[in-house]
Amino acid sequence: MPDAAEAALPGTPVVGMVGGGQLAQMTCQAAIGLGASFRVLAASGGDSAARVWRDIRVGDHRCLDDLRSFAAGCDVVTFDHEHVPAEHLRALERAGVAVRPGAGALRFTQDKLAMRGKLTGIGVPCPRYAPVSGAADAERFAESAGGPAVLKAVSGGYDGKGVWACGSPREAARTAAELTGRGVRLLAEEHVAFTRELAALVARSPHGQGAAYPVVQTVQRDGICREVIAPAPGLDPDCAAQAQELALRIAAELGVTGLLAVELFDTPAGLLVNELAMRPHNSGHWTIEGARTSQFEQHLRAVLDLPLGATAMAAPHAVMANLLGGDDPDLYSRYTHVMAADPGVKLHIYGKDVRPGRKIGHVTVLGDDPGDLRDRARRAVNYLRWGDEERE
Amino acid sequence: MPDAAEAALPGTPVVGMVGGGQLAQMTCQAAIGLGASFRVLAASGGDSAARVWRDIRVGDHRCLDDLRSFAAGCDVVTFDHEHVPAEHLRALERAGVAVRPGAGALRFTQDKLAMRGKLTGIGVPCPRYAPVSGAADAERFAESAGGPAVLKAVSGGYDGKGVWACGSPREAARTAAELTGRGVRLLAEEHVAFTRELAALVARSPHGQGAAYPVVQTVQRDGICREVIAPAPGLDPDCAAQAQELALRIAAELGVTGLLAVELFDTPAGLLVNELAMRPHNSGHWTIEGARTSQFEQHLRAVLDLPLGATAMAAPHAVMANLLGGDDPDLYSRYTHVMAADPGVKLHIYGKDVRPGRKIGHVTVLGDDPGDLRDRARRAVNYLRWGDEERE
Repeated sequence: MPDAAEAALPGTPVVGMVGGGQLAQMTCQAAIGLGASFRVLAASGGDSAARVWRDIRVGDHRCLDDLRSFAAGCDVVTFDHEHVPAEHLRALERAGVAVRPGAGALRFTQDKLAMRGKLTGIGVPCPRYAPVSGAADAERFAESAGGPAVLKAVSGGYDGKGVWACGSPREAARTAAELTGRGVRLLAEEHVAFTRELAALVARSPHGQGAAYPVVQTVQRDGICREVIAPAPGLDPDCAAQAQELALRIAAELGVTGLLAVELFDTPAGLLVNELAMRPHNSGHWTIEGARTSQFEQHLRAVLDLPLGATAMAAPHAVMANLLGGDDPDLYSRYTHVMAADPGVKLHIYGKDVRPGRKIGHVTVLGDDPGDLRDRARRAVNYLRWGDEERE
Repeated sequence: MPDAAEAALPGTPVVGMVGGGQLAQMTCQAAIGLGASFRVLAASGGDSAARVWRDIRVGDHRCLDDLRSFAAGCDVVTFDHEHVPAEHLRALERAGVAVRPGAGALRFTQDKLAMRGKLTGIGVPCPRYAPVSGAADAERFAESAGGPAVLKAVSGGYDGKGVWACGSPREAARTAAELTGRGVRLLAEEHVAFTRELAALVARSPHGQGAAYPVVQTVQRDGICREVIAPAPGLDPDCAAQAQELALRIAAELGVTGLLAVELFDTPAGLLVNELAMRPHNSGHWTIEGARTSQFEQHLRAVLDLPLGATAMAAPHAVMANLLGGDDPDLYSRYTHVMAADPGVKLHIYGKDVRPGRKIGHVTVLGDDPGDLRDRARRAVNYLRWGDEERE
């Protein structure tokens, strides 16, 4: 087998990504184009990125020793998830590792109370919220909110996990009592009656260059993103500019390096920030074909402090639909049908074992009519899942 | 380190590519998207594809044992070059390996006399040619051609190697005497006074589906492709259709599976076929960003007998310029300048050691005005080479 030292390209700094999921895997595609030296710390050799990429280290992202030895061979360390413990991030930084985004920024993706406190502190519109230490706090918040409330885990939630919608103050009290009793740290937020959800994706490099992608609409079901429409149909240009400015401002104020995805609620009273992610994000997968620079290439450029790439769209409209696992693990025999039915659909299969509800791939279609693109994307995903139909 | 068996995705056939150069490396990017199981037989761990890809075997493509053991783990075997000996290809086929393209088709890329004989036999217009076994044949051909003649090695030539332009019958005789004396098998061709060079890229799958890309113009210097303009500017639509039909017909008549690139001379008297390649081709690199389906994805689809992807352009025009190595091996510190000067340029760096004149990467730009795109592509390549300017 080849010598590991050959994997790094001569003269190029090594970017190490902690986490070997599909985001790391799609970053591999971008690293090939750039000729960048890219290394992944995967949890196992079966991770999406580890299945394909040569320069893989296997280790535990929760173990400081594993992180230290991974970082030792890298010029820059970045992430495909938010789950590295904050104290480990700080330890790496103290040891002189270039951690991008840094511990100070990542904190706001790991602690929703800190995030809400910071954002409201710099004047960014957010849903009303309050810390919750037990039933009484939750009930009081829900009563004052005057409608349904949402309890959220302060850390660790994703894809609808760690979120509990409560229809009444009583339900909020009961849910909070149960969760805090199990040691879950909570905050409460008002239920926002949004007209739709948007996402603003920006990149920021260490020396401060920023770049914003067109604002997209996201369609969630059961807390999981199912569809992304770029650009968001019919979005008022002032509102789009406001969302981009908001995201660039958050990136600067929080000291983000790399990508920042800002999930937004579009409401009759204006935009409210829902969540933040500081990495390539599901709402930006459409950029692989749909923008001049994919979010994965952009993230590499940003963490390497290279000039950022053009964010212009490569087509008038793009639609991305997530492929969730169905009951049948045999994906390959199905995708022939998708290819035959629509030669313009771009498939992205992550190489993950198929489990019901798990994100195992996505499809992207580009063209002139967003309604037609949504139909095509949904049809492709239906073929691949077979039976469990995607509907509006 | 991860177990090699994990590299293949469950349920997907394994495509093995013999040769680990940049064509294999760019096929890796396409394999990630498709979720295809892709394996490479590289000459060394430092080959472009081997530097990045996990599922690599190291071996000699001229050694039947190495080919056999590589093929044993693959469902389909394909190629990033034409240099596997014909008898080895036939031996693999006799052993039941799915070789795509097959030995019967590849023969016409390895033996220019067989190619000329076959093409003229099926009525495809070619330059006048004749086999040359010594000085007398060469002189006679050059005299009858009534102008400069070209001597070509029957096999093994590429990028301007294996081609000798001869200004007079006497020079043809002298050159032929010297070359045949060294054991080089030769043919002679008339020197074609073309107005420009074109290339037609098509794909054909084992069950016979065909797909044609827009016809492009190629700009060569010293026998090496420097620029590709897609589509060929100002090409008469009938002529474009004729070139596509010609390529599809050649693919069918020669039994090609996978990609076929047909290099053409555009002359006042019509199109003449110059060369054939049965693999992803330099004239198709623009398709990575410039077409709905990249040539690398298309080749994988074709050799897997999957439905072929859409060949429509993703922008009105695309220009690709090759990056040849200059005197300075430090590429990385230069590409910052390219990125800063033109955020829309797409870089493709192959991870090869920089040697003067060697193809070490390419750039692609997409947009509305081919003249502007050519300027941008040339400027990017000049920045990267520093000093040795690309000019019209």
